[in-house]
Amino acid sequence: MNYPDSLNNLIENFKKMPGIGEKTAERLAFSVLNFDQDDIDSFSKSIKEIKSKLKKCVVCNNLTESEKCNICDDLSRDNSIICVVEDTKNLYLFEKAGNYNGKYHVLDGLISPLNGINPEDINIDSLINRVHKENTKEVIIAVKPTIEGETTSLYILKLLKDTNVVVSKIAHGVPLGSDMEYLDALTLEMAMNDRKKISE
Amino acid sequence: MNYPDSLNNLIENFKKMPGIGEKTAERLAFSVLNFDQDDIDSFSKSIKEIKSKLKKCVVCNNLTESEKCNICDDLSRDNSIICVVEDTKNLYLFEKAGNYNGKYHVLDGLISPLNGINPEDINIDSLINRVHKENTKEVIIAVKPTIEGETTSLYILKLLKDTNVVVSKIAHGVPLGSDMEYLDALTLEMAMNDRKKISE
Repeated sequence: MNYPDSLNNLIENFKKMPGIGEKTAERLAFSVLNFDQDDIDSFSKSIKEIKSKLKKCVVCNNLTESEKCNICDDLSRDNSIICVVEDTKNLYLFEKAGNYNGKYHVLDGLISPLNGINPEDINIDSLINRVHKENTKEVIIAVKPTIEGETTSLYILKLLKDTNVVVSKIAHGVPLGSDMEYLDALTLEMAMNDRKKISE
Repeated sequence: MNYPDSLNNLIENFKKMPGIGEKTAERLAFSVLNFDQDDIDSFSKSIKEIKSKLKKCVVCNNLTESEKCNICDDLSRDNSIICVVEDTKNLYLFEKAGNYNGKYHVLDGLISPLNGINPEDINIDSLINRVHKENTKEVIIAVKPTIEGETTSLYILKLLKDTNVVVSKIAHGVPLGSDMEYLDALTLEMAMNDRKKISE
């Protein structure tokens, strides 16, 4: 028993995305069937344009439709702080949190020798160049606390050791609103080690 | 803080689908960013083709790329039984279950006067015509047991009252592998009323 080819093609395409299994792909494909023609055209076009229109910012490697991204172009932002993230998605997570007003540097992933990803593959050179060229005071490393994240942090720290730049790392600990019992031991250990004095 | 336009367009398009919220739409859009050009082209094309290539089977209203769908065209299937489903999606659910070898008739939804959906809107006429024209022995009504489903069932039953056709309804009851405590009272009541004798 098979779907008509065109329906099947769409289902297969949805299945290429992470977290989309057979059933969800079918549900999504059937929902597209009910789109009106304008929505179909817009959807189809937006997928085509995602590759053709978007490029990497020449300064920070963020996604942009121009040469420089709107964050690098924003004169109201503090040019002396650079927050290092592992991909564009994480940049936008911090942007949504909304309280950071410095610049970013987007890596192409994290160092992972086991997967053949070496320091020279992830756009660290251009970070170091920026730090030397711009008047950078602080580099905040905002990557996840995994082995790959720690390796990448240490590598950047080493390269910036002989400069006057402050290198910092985002805090790791118990997230707000979370139930302690669902957290892993390492997170609790970090939360314990990084405790803050609150008595006066 | 805004995404670049082309990324934002894609996110908005994903959000038009059921069950896709802001976060999932973002996750999906970012995953499309990592597609290679062939996958992008294929995805974009498959969305365009879903409307242009697919049409309704002239016999049963199933989706097809030809005049008649592959089920109506299949000579090995029993032409004397017609299973009535509320949409194409449900047809494929029964096809996947795999033990039914008759034909189908796909309604355009269920009768729902409150939503302005009347009997003449959901392709019932062509079912009755088929029953009279083809040598139909049984019509199995396989719609969900809601008010709309029951109304539709009763309406079809009424129209076929004066024929020799057997009208039946799929069984409702406790699904296999389910935990009794999560089922609603009506399902349990139906399961009780439709009990089967198993002693010899």
